Amino acid sequence: MAPPSNLTRIGLSGLAVMGQNLALNIAEKGFPISVYNRTPSKVDETVERAKQEGNLPLFGFHDPESFVNSIQKPRVIIMLVKAGAPVDETIKTLSAYLEKGDCIVDGGNEWYENTERREKAMTELGLLYLGMGVSGGEEGARNGPSLMPGGSKDAYKHIEDILHKVAAQVPDSGPCVTYIGKGGSGNFVKMVHNGIEYGDMQLIAEAYDVLKSVGKLSNDELQSVFSEWNKGELLSFLIEITADIFGIKDDKGDGYLVDKVLDKTGMKGTGKWTVQQAAELSVAAPTIAASLDSRFLSGLKEERVEAAKVFKSGGFGDVLTEQEVDKAKLIDDVRQALYASKICSYAQGMNLIRAKSIEKGWGIKLGDLAKIWKGGCIIRAIFLDRIKKAYDRNADLANLLVDPEFAKEIIERQSAWRKVVCLAINSGISTPGMSSSLAYFDTYRRERLPANLVQAQRDYFGAHTYERTDHEGSFHTEWFKIAKQLNN
Amino acid sequence: MAPPSNLTRIGLSGLAVMGQNLALNIAEKGFPISVYNRTPSKVDETVERAKQEGNLPLFGFHDPESFVNSIQKPRVIIMLVKAGAPVDETIKTLSAYLEKGDCIVDGGNEWYENTERREKAMTELGLLYLGMGVSGGEEGARNGPSLMPGGSKDAYKHIEDILHKVAAQVPDSGPCVTYIGKGGSGNFVKMVHNGIEYGDMQLIAEAYDVLKSVGKLSNDELQSVFSEWNKGELLSFLIEITADIFGIKDDKGDGYLVDKVLDKTGMKGTGKWTVQQAAELSVAAPTIAASLDSRFLSGLKEERVEAAKVFKSGGFGDVLTEQEVDKAKLIDDVRQALYASKICSYAQGMNLIRAKSIEKGWGIKLGDLAKIWKGGCIIRAIFLDRIKKAYDRNADLANLLVDPEFAKEIIERQSAWRKVVCLAINSGISTPGMSSSLAYFDTYRRERLPANLVQAQRDYFGAHTYERTDHEGSFHTEWFKIAKQLNN
Repeated sequence: MAPPSNLTRIGLSGLAVMGQNLALNIAEKGFPISVYNRTPSKVDETVERAKQEGNLPLFGFHDPESFVNSIQKPRVIIMLVKAGAPVDETIKTLSAYLEKGDCIVDGGNEWYENTERREKAMTELGLLYLGMGVSGGEEGARNGPSLMPGGSKDAYKHIEDILHKVAAQVPDSGPCVTYIGKGGSGNFVKMVHNGIEYGDMQLIAEAYDVLKSVGKLSNDELQSVFSEWNKGELLSFLIEITADIFGIKDDKGDGYLVDKVLDKTGMKGTGKWTVQQAAELSVAAPTIAASLDSRFLSGLKEERVEAAKVFKSGGFGDVLTEQEVDKAKLIDDVRQALYASKICSYAQGMNLIRAKSIEKGWGIKLGDLAKIWKGGCIIRAIFLDRIKKAYDRNADLANLLVDPEFAKEIIERQSAWRKVVCLAINSGISTPGMSSSLAYFDTYRRERLPANLVQAQRDYFGAHTYERTDHEGSFHTEWFKIAKQLNN
Repeated sequence: MAPPSNLTRIGLSGLAVMGQNLALNIAEKGFPISVYNRTPSKVDETVERAKQEGNLPLFGFHDPESFVNSIQKPRVIIMLVKAGAPVDETIKTLSAYLEKGDCIVDGGNEWYENTERREKAMTELGLLYLGMGVSGGEEGARNGPSLMPGGSKDAYKHIEDILHKVAAQVPDSGPCVTYIGKGGSGNFVKMVHNGIEYGDMQLIAEAYDVLKSVGKLSNDELQSVFSEWNKGELLSFLIEITADIFGIKDDKGDGYLVDKVLDKTGMKGTGKWTVQQAAELSVAAPTIAASLDSRFLSGLKEERVEAAKVFKSGGFGDVLTEQEVDKAKLIDDVRQALYASKICSYAQGMNLIRAKSIEKGWGIKLGDLAKIWKGGCIIRAIFLDRIKKAYDRNADLANLLVDPEFAKEIIERQSAWRKVVCLAINSGISTPGMSSSLAYFDTYRRERLPANLVQAQRDYFGAHTYERTDHEGSFHTEWFKIAKQLNN
């Protein structure tokens, strides 16, 4: 497309996979867009794609000044560059040409505190700033992602119409975008979204492991199980692609590709941050933590190979005891275990967001998040509709587990859930996500925990005091002295 | 005692419980000590105790200048004040009177990076700095703690003779102190020590819960079980005090005190830091994380009471099904489960320290840590001797689990371990520490994990690439395109 005769509506800087696709999506929705990248070939590539994909109103620039000047005021520029230093560099480059009232939007997976630092610096220059989580991968960016913008509400208002059209559209629910809140709230919510995504993926991997290692299901059978599951309560993007994966043959040899993929999982940082923030905020998030740990341990492939030798010679193999199982029953039990575990994982993620929102005064409505995650993003699922409804019933719900509908679903599934975890344990298959979910549930639902002993120990050796069940106040006992007297 | 006619050997500032007791310990070992506190009454109190406890060579000062001037050069002053800002304030107060070559030692539970920042600032003033972990509580500080000094080796050398006498003494093993390494290594090691302590306490609480809730053991029975355990492989300070606790009657009513202690556990920060550092360093530490989460959930007492109501009405109580159990067998199984879980917890803590030591170039020898933890500290146990031996056999041991002796012990106990965790699960008793330990073991010992599926999913939606089991290199597959073709 020729240089724009008029100014464009918006700009986008950073034309790697996500940036290119989001720019094309915006152009396709009818908003003329200027694009820029430090490497000019990326600009040309994007311009070429815009031409190919329908002569979209996308205009490329090789220098930042003409890029900035091509956009109508107040200018809005979305950055999609690597989190950290590259974001600071891009801001520096662009802000040299920006004017008061212009806006910068960071669409990367940035640490929320970096966004807050930058928003402050931008404000001093008279510029507006947004940190916007973008989920959905390449495909989502192109055809409709889930968007989580946080920061300057004025900046949000400037582009609300664009975001509403660019975001994924869900029937009866609308576009998958809402203004999250001030400061780094958009990045924080996206971070927890990714933590939940870790949990979902781990739970699916455990379901696969039990079905394959204990149930001896073939890839063909696994494909039909996951396809079937994708018609019911587990209907979701991740279940759908899992079914797809089991159907794909190896292009380099016999058999199925999934069996040739090395069992080492990479990661990028948002899962780690989620676990660290959970600890910081005193929120238990064991399912998400178990997913992160599983990724860490998957990376120790060489150590695991050695450990397997040590324990094989000690008398047990990969699967401890071959057990006769009723396949149909096992499949149904695993489905229930997966679903119940998933409730726990989302309960953890939601409570983490609430704790942060309270700390920071963000005023995030959890039901709104469930709504904007219904489409576009990696964790999109029919399940999110139930979460939305749970918060509609009670916006102050202490935990998803005690919502009447979820409680009912757990009660119905708890027997299968316990069965699957014990079957896995007795087979020597680890299901850290499912078992820590179950422990989370059984801890949360118990009025009385053995924590009295821990507190008594703390008072014994450290005089940390304790409360009592029957009297108000704080107490200390000279446990050692009394015990010494008793022992004499 | 009258003002010293000669200069004292060392000074100590900060006379709360730990400071007072450590000062008295040092004086008792024959090292004349000057003490100071911002609140003069604390000084007088300590001087009075020194008189009462044997006319010990301890000298009190009400102003920092005369305190500092009373110490022989190069001066060494141990601070025992609250971590964070109070440490900075104390340093500021003291350093006004210190001279080049003098040393400050922080004996608190400080975040290791604060120590590194301060050491750097001290170096610029020509002063030396140590961050020294001190474990053992009040009693340990008075009679022999475990000491973990890190930072300036010169500073360490100035007081090595004192620390060797003040530390706990273990027969055939010596004093529980060694120079840990540079920078904040002493604080870091103490932090992980505390994380391991969290793990031990949680595992003991779970053993208690299973024996009490499923095995229906009385407090009397629990006391004899833990006393018995304290004669064998579990011999340790924490098991000993647990036995003591079960023997103590309530002084405010009928029954035993432990049953009146509210099931809410407090915490101070080192456990949280341990979990956050594990995530930072990509080290799986699920047992320690489970202990932290259990403390968080114990704090939600009111929510748990409400949740118990929700699920009670749904048809299940605190313990799901009353099961007939053979008490003697159960006790023996629980002992084995506790021991096997403990191995996993220590493996996690040790690997966390190693990862940090490599990152920072501290050169920490893990066997040395096991040695100095054998006495004085809260986690002191006969078990540490086995850890010491494991690292003596192989200093580069990848994981305690694959040490031949520990592997053998696990193999012997794994059947009981699985039985206890499944019994707990079927009873609705959560054992998050034991079950996450077991999952850790079963994950680590497996050559092939279901992580291949997770990596395939990541490549599917995010083009994150994957490795193969049979070819070198990094691969990407157009899963979506292939699946689409197959589905048509």
